[in-house]
Amino acid sequence: MKKIFISILVTIALSFSYQKKSKIVFFGDSITEAGVQRGGYIVRIDSMCMLEKKSERYEFTGAGVSGNKVYDLFLRLEKDVLDKSPDLVVIYIGVNDVWHKASSGTGTDADKFEKFYQAIIDKLISRSIKMILCTPAAIGERTDFSNQQDGDLNHYANIIRKLASKNQLALVDLRKTFLDYNLKYNKENKDRGILTGDRVHLNATGNQLVADEIWRAIKKI
Amino acid sequence: MKKIFISILVTIALSFSYQKKSKIVFFGDSITEAGVQRGGYIVRIDSMCMLEKKSERYEFTGAGVSGNKVYDLFLRLEKDVLDKSPDLVVIYIGVNDVWHKASSGTGTDADKFEKFYQAIIDKLISRSIKMILCTPAAIGERTDFSNQQDGDLNHYANIIRKLASKNQLALVDLRKTFLDYNLKYNKENKDRGILTGDRVHLNATGNQLVADEIWRAIKKI
Amino acid sequence: MKKIFISILVTIALSFSYQKKSKIVFFGDSITEAGVQRGGYIVRIDSMCMLEKKSERYEFTGAGVSGNKVYDLFLRLEKDVLDKSPDLVVIYIGVNDVWHKASSGTGTDADKFEKFYQAIIDKLISRSIKMILCTPAAIGERTDFSNQQDGDLNHYANIIRKLASKNQLALVDLRKTFLDYNLKYNKENKDRGILTGDRVHLNATGNQLVADEIWRAIKKI
Amino acid sequence: MKKIFISILVTIALSFSYQKKSKIVFFGDSITEAGVQRGGYIVRIDSMCMLEKKSERYEFTGAGVSGNKVYDLFLRLEKDVLDKSPDLVVIYIGVNDVWHKASSGTGTDADKFEKFYQAIIDKLISRSIKMILCTPAAIGERTDFSNQQDGDLNHYANIIRKLASKNQLALVDLRKTFLDYNLKYNKENKDRGILTGDRVHLNATGNQLVADEIWRAIKKI
Repeated sequence: MKKIFISILVTIALSFSYQKKSKIVFFGDSITEAGVQRGGYIVRIDSMCMLEKKSERYEFTGAGVSGNKVYDLFLRLEKDVLDKSPDLVVIYIGVNDVWHKASSGTGTDADKFEKFYQAIIDKLISRSIKMILCTPAAIGERTDFSNQQDGDLNHYANIIRKLASKNQLALVDLRKTFLDYNLKYNKENKDRGILTGDRVHLNATGNQLVADEIWRAIKKI
Repeated sequence: MKKIFISILVTIALSFSYQKKSKIVFFGDSITEAGVQRGGYIVRIDSMCMLEKKSERYEFTGAGVSGNKVYDLFLRLEKDVLDKSPDLVVIYIGVNDVWHKASSGTGTDADKFEKFYQAIIDKLISRSIKMILCTPAAIGERTDFSNQQDGDLNHYANIIRKLASKNQLALVDLRKTFLDYNLKYNKENKDRGILTGDRVHLNATGNQLVADEIWRAIKKI
Repeated sequence: MKKIFISILVTIALSFSYQKKSKIVFFGDSITEAGVQRGGYIVRIDSMCMLEKKSERYEFTGAGVSGNKVYDLFLRLEKDVLDKSPDLVVIYIGVNDVWHKASSGTGTDADKFEKFYQAIIDKLISRSIKMILCTPAAIGERTDFSNQQDGDLNHYANIIRKLASKNQLALVDLRKTFLDYNLKYNKENKDRGILTGDRVHLNATGNQLVADEIWRAIKKI
Repeated sequence: MKKIFISILVTIALSFSYQKKSKIVFFGDSITEAGVQRGGYIVRIDSMCMLEKKSERYEFTGAGVSGNKVYDLFLRLEKDVLDKSPDLVVIYIGVNDVWHKASSGTGTDADKFEKFYQAIIDKLISRSIKMILCTPAAIGERTDFSNQQDGDLNHYANIIRKLASKNQLALVDLRKTFLDYNLKYNKENKDRGILTGDRVHLNATGNQLVADEIWRAIKKI
């Protein structure tokens, strides 16, 4: 009698561990903050997940704060990410690190961008948390690289690509995805209105494109 | 016999007066200031002109001042250009208008860049002075558009291209020339050392390339 | 009889020519642009002028353009000032030259601020046009010099004071006036709401204070 | 006999605990990095300590890194400070947070300066480590608040004063000390050469003044 009872308990335990949800935190700036709003890219990922009947396997949490740069992520890493014990963190940062140089003189030096980004990666690796790194998509959608921050944004995207490769982490190269999309659908070389509403923040099409790319990457992990 | 001889003399005299020297002023920033130094692009144009035995037809004057932006050219237009009664002005400006945004917070807004540039063109046109417009070559020589100012510099180069076309003026598109050259010879994607010494100022190869391009354009006018 | 009559006519004509209106142009940025709006400082000067029954002696014209810096004034000096043949020009510039350094990277270097300002003065002097120079009042109203641009604004105000003294021109030192007023009435060290609505643009009290100061200076000339 | 022996042991133990050295870490930017060089302020504190025969009580360590801002201190807090188990940390930061806004567009927003500074304080408090906070002394020595960054530097100094008061920490108000000194000895309103060599970095007099102020504060703790 006693023996059987124990056996059942073990079975239940195993089945629970199998069905344990993968906790995913989206860590970023205002783009990610808007991601949990109606039509936002995180909401869209959640919807796609449900449609594909995978809701028992994934749980999504937004951790985006408007105006954040890489060092802000580092500052609130413990409270907003580690304390939630995630299995996977999607890091989507870099726009403000570049943009704020011109708009308020408070951007991030390239070498420090890399340093803080690596420090975040190190802390997550030390806890065996998986990661997906995203390159910053756009500050302006012109396709001839004549948006004011294109040079700098390409440089910071290169840094993130290098970090992904060096640390053997998954990469969602949104910068490339957005450029490819605009080369196809932005024939008039407009600076907004294709994937963003204001050159930076995602419109419906942009949110869906980001959702598609990240969701595909999540399922691969 | 005698009659014919005289007629020939007159023809020669006329042809000499036709050969009146064309006065050319190079109007720009530190790159042009260095152009009259040993090995500078203006000195090289002068040498090529002599080698091609055209010295009796052209006279070259440098009017470059370190740190100049488009509005500085406008300020000293009268004194440094108009007072010299040139036949042709080569305008080579734009690097500091973009660069100083990041290095001292004193760059030039794109719309004002265009406005001041057009004001210079208007004054020269009103005096029937010919012009060659040059696009700013480079702030960094990486070929993947990851130099910090690439986006902005492309934008300001576009403005100059538009101004040349709109005002039907000759254009020397140094930005394109430099990019094409680097795509061929800068396979390592270095940010300096191919055509510039310090990402901006021309080395010997850069000075020769600029001299070649501008000299060709001068001869076409 | 006839003779006397003529003589009287001549006298009247002379007296009329004596009363020829003095044409005053206010030359500046958005603060001056707003000066001709209801409640603006130029409207207030006009009202005080009428109340003091001096309207037959003065005529006021606004020439303020939003976002203008000193070199913008230089660019439109001919069209917006000289072409109006003014007797007196009130120059009120400097806020954007300082402010835009931080907000868009397109402020004006101090040495060039002085150079362009002097160039404007020179052109007006050459036409025997009188001038009143104003120092920029404020970017933030805190009285302990802890507004972000205080140091720079003090520096540019010093340049204008020096220019007034060097060129023996009337000075309306709004920067000092505003500080003195705030030291009395802004005991809580607020950054706006005393003389400005938004740290820069004048509220009703600010417009009246500026009107008082400039009107007093005009009557002295 | 036994009783006496014990008594001696106790005495030795007490005397040892009395003589345990207080470990002091100086945490800052290039000014602190230079502090451990010949003539630097940390070397001078060490010398004064020796002269006052207090070397058995204090041990000084420099932890200054050129170009550091408040978030850089936060990033290397663990490795460069906590791992050394200090008893007291002297924090001297803020110049680059303000300066780099203008020189490279990579300064620190005021609200984030406060946030990161408080985060450092929190970590040190949680380890019961004592602190002395210093205000940034100067970017330019003119005494009429016409140095470009005076407004901003005053603002950031105010933030540090508030943090010291709010967290009940010792404050060395170098900004005030430097201004008072310059008001006495910089009658010509020069921007450098009194306490700094280049408007920012300390000359011999500046190093001694900083050493005096901090050494006095250390002895009070």
